[in-house]
Amino acid sequence: MVIDVHTHIVPEHFPALGGRVAGDAWPYMDHIAPGEANVMISGRNFRTVVDRCWSVPRRLGDMPSEGTDQQVLSPMPELLAYNMSPTDCLELGKHLNETIARMISESPDKFYGLGAVPLQDPDLAAKELSAVKSMGLQGVEVLSNVNGENLGAAKYRGFFKEVERLGLAVFVHSQHPTFMDRVVGPEVLDNVLGFPIESGLAAASVITGGLLQDCPDLRICFSHGGGVFGLLLPRMEHVWSVRAPMREALAEAPSVTAKKLYYDDVFFDSRTLRYLLDMVGVSQVMVGSDYPFFMRHITPAKEFEELCLSQANAEAIASGNCLRFLGVS
Amino acid sequence: MVIDVHTHIVPEHFPALGGRVAGDAWPYMDHIAPGEANVMISGRNFRTVVDRCWSVPRRLGDMPSEGTDQQVLSPMPELLAYNMSPTDCLELGKHLNETIARMISESPDKFYGLGAVPLQDPDLAAKELSAVKSMGLQGVEVLSNVNGENLGAAKYRGFFKEVERLGLAVFVHSQHPTFMDRVVGPEVLDNVLGFPIESGLAAASVITGGLLQDCPDLRICFSHGGGVFGLLLPRMEHVWSVRAPMREALAEAPSVTAKKLYYDDVFFDSRTLRYLLDMVGVSQVMVGSDYPFFMRHITPAKEFEELCLSQANAEAIASGNCLRFLGVS
Repeated sequence: MVIDVHTHIVPEHFPALGGRVAGDAWPYMDHIAPGEANVMISGRNFRTVVDRCWSVPRRLGDMPSEGTDQQVLSPMPELLAYNMSPTDCLELGKHLNETIARMISESPDKFYGLGAVPLQDPDLAAKELSAVKSMGLQGVEVLSNVNGENLGAAKYRGFFKEVERLGLAVFVHSQHPTFMDRVVGPEVLDNVLGFPIESGLAAASVITGGLLQDCPDLRICFSHGGGVFGLLLPRMEHVWSVRAPMREALAEAPSVTAKKLYYDDVFFDSRTLRYLLDMVGVSQVMVGSDYPFFMRHITPAKEFEELCLSQANAEAIASGNCLRFLGVS
Repeated sequence: MVIDVHTHIVPEHFPALGGRVAGDAWPYMDHIAPGEANVMISGRNFRTVVDRCWSVPRRLGDMPSEGTDQQVLSPMPELLAYNMSPTDCLELGKHLNETIARMISESPDKFYGLGAVPLQDPDLAAKELSAVKSMGLQGVEVLSNVNGENLGAAKYRGFFKEVERLGLAVFVHSQHPTFMDRVVGPEVLDNVLGFPIESGLAAASVITGGLLQDCPDLRICFSHGGGVFGLLLPRMEHVWSVRAPMREALAEAPSVTAKKLYYDDVFFDSRTLRYLLDMVGVSQVMVGSDYPFFMRHITPAKEFEELCLSQANAEAIASGNCLRFLGVS
């Protein structure tokens, strides 16, 4: 039994723009061929997608070759449009959440769901969480930064407290890297270099911002294995052990907090995954893929074999950790 | 025989400001007690340092407890003042280089040296390299970004070609992280989180910018184990293998180029160092410490023991790789 915690959906259609203020930031699907559409955002084709993004039968058909049995559905991250007005973003999120709920209802033993909330307005986002839960979703997906602001910042504390109170899960997805002036080379580097650094910065900000101190029961997962976080951790730990300002700011060692966060295993290298397992523990890592945008490079079973995992550890990474993360018994 | 590739110096004095345009950006040493001084830069105490920074006898006295036999001397990175006018920075660099050369001359079997050049003016920096070499230094230290610009950018290609032509070494030190808006928490985080990400971005920019394609014989080392670079590499490798834009931009796999770069071992965790060794090869890693600012947490001998290194591999990391990096036979 293998659950993929990191898969994305795009609705087949979006409601028409109507009277909203979003203007052409409001997405629409330009269906260019059967089962194929351009996701149009702000007047350009953000990405050409196929019906794997919205079709339950297509997804079920892919699972055997993916080596997975269940998927956690979350929106294509670009659709968490924090650049929109909060009310437009809320409405777009409701459509995403309804789409995910409907996909789950088509095959309830195959899917879980993480919805969208307008985190650029933390109070509005917090208020929407009850609706997300009542639709049967297990939590929300949020971006690694909110228009450049950090998840560990105080302004998001109330939102995360409400997430914790409702027993929901948070999946943090890398998006919109803010330091692309520091990259030289082909255009794909926002994804190649930006994503893992985004994920690392988000995980670090949660620790250094003290989020888990305020929300000890929060279940929060970082995409792409937490990105570079595993290489930030030893220096955080060393400085915490030798320098007063770090020790005064953080009640517990960063290595302890790191073992309370969750991470997917989207690394493309078993040595890298082994390193993460060594640093944060087998209990915090879950199978992921970025399906259907990045197809899995090896099946989870093959990956577990390369890592020489015990049966118990393989089962934890395959499903047990994910069920605990989602709050599903 | 252990060489520490990553140690810093501060001169006991700087020449007086004179007619320079640097104004109070020009550093001076405010000696507050015997063997203790504030390094004053732009009207504030950048750091209180002790005579370990300039005293050869003090450094020799520390080597036994450090578990090292030789040190590579490079300027305290803040002194590579790329924010100054190029001519002022050149003059400051000459003073740093003379200081390092004099320290070497006091105990020539104990020290090597990496000097300073005004990289904000790549042509002027390139012209100064012959002088650096003729003073007996083995190369130069440069910062991980040049007033925000990336070492892999085309404008620095001529400088690196001259470095390569002269057979000098380059030590890239993390400094002035450009993304500190993405950090939440105590003030030390520029060092804790900024430095490893800086180092990772610098190493990545050298690869994605194609520097080693143009300068195949360049010997270039990244501080703090290349920072987060080891966790950027698998994603770079995967995307290079599946996406045309990466493949068109880079003539060889990132994992191949990564094995041509050098890295110190300043990680504070033997698991992390093991991971780096697995990713880039034993031949590319050297002992470092950031002495005298961060004191070594364990001796190299103890570190090698924790890693269960063979005698040959331990010798490579202890000295052989460093001599090859420095171009010393």
